[in-house]
Amino acid sequence: MKTVADYIKSIPDFPKPGIVFRDVTSVLESPEGFKLAMDEMIKRLDGVEFDLIAGAEARGFIFGAPIAYALGKGFVPVRKKGKLPRETVSMAYELEYGTAEIEIHKDAIKPGQKIVIVDDLIATGGTIEASTRLIEELGGEVVKVLFLIELPGLNGRARLEKYDVESIVSFDGE
Amino acid sequence: MKTVADYIKSIPDFPKPGIVFRDVTSVLESPEGFKLAMDEMIKRLDGVEFDLIAGAEARGFIFGAPIAYALGKGFVPVRKKGKLPRETVSMAYELEYGTAEIEIHKDAIKPGQKIVIVDDLIATGGTIEASTRLIEELGGEVVKVLFLIELPGLNGRARLEKYDVESIVSFDGE
Repeated sequence: MKTVADYIKSIPDFPKPGIVFRDVTSVLESPEGFKLAMDEMIKRLDGVEFDLIAGAEARGFIFGAPIAYALGKGFVPVRKKGKLPRETVSMAYELEYGTAEIEIHKDAIKPGQKIVIVDDLIATGGTIEASTRLIEELGGEVVKVLFLIELPGLNGRARLEKYDVESIVSFDGE
Repeated sequence: MKTVADYIKSIPDFPKPGIVFRDVTSVLESPEGFKLAMDEMIKRLDGVEFDLIAGAEARGFIFGAPIAYALGKGFVPVRKKGKLPRETVSMAYELEYGTAEIEIHKDAIKPGQKIVIVDDLIATGGTIEASTRLIEELGGEVVKVLFLIELPGLNGRARLEKYDVESIVSFDGE
């Protein structure tokens, strides 16, 4: 029987020499792969009490929104600066070169609400760490952080050590 | 009973004076609103035979991916140039000021496959028209184009007149 890992294409030397890119689009472009990935992610939320799924632009939308709908929850988009139309809270964070800034609607999360963050892949964890801070600034509680793919060699978990972090597929040695 | 329209916030003078912005994030941030919107969209696909959902970055991901998962289909992301890791086909199209360029993986759609395009909102229809051309360049057939919100005053349907276009909520007079 195929596992989720069998649907992930590995692309050598992308986006630059020496990097092996783990491609999640090959999972979701396959009906069987996408169903398997989403089923596995939803299974990890068995018994987890929560109110909302938060997902970061853009690939976090693809994995987070189906989980929200399947489990009858709302979906809170974490977007790049300037994309959300109502009042937001925002947070800048460091990238390899320069900085990025993300935002959440101020009224999207109410104090005491329990949030699950979903993303396609954890590498260094910068975007998700910034997302946890925004959620907490609004009084939300991050009860779980769920990834399809984890690259443990980049040690993103160290930035999220306060949280319950899970991933479905892990590519060691990177 | 509330309808989907009741969950859509209207924001006057955004992004510029005289424009009323129809905000879909207020739908998806509500568990009830998101469920209602997705249920209605899925209902419009009753009896439609198709293989894949295509959704355009970024809000098309939020509405397209849950439909793909709920109906056991694959999801093909239509992305801005430079974001997809494998070989792509791309298409430039005109915006109000300047141009944009979108891409699809070349191997994501096989000749003869039937595609449903999903997006949050149809305004002038430029992105979706470009998406239909890319799908057809790969030999796919666009069997339906489904929006949550339509702004008929901007006449986006004229650009999609070859297709079966449906929307759930229409804001006349714009």
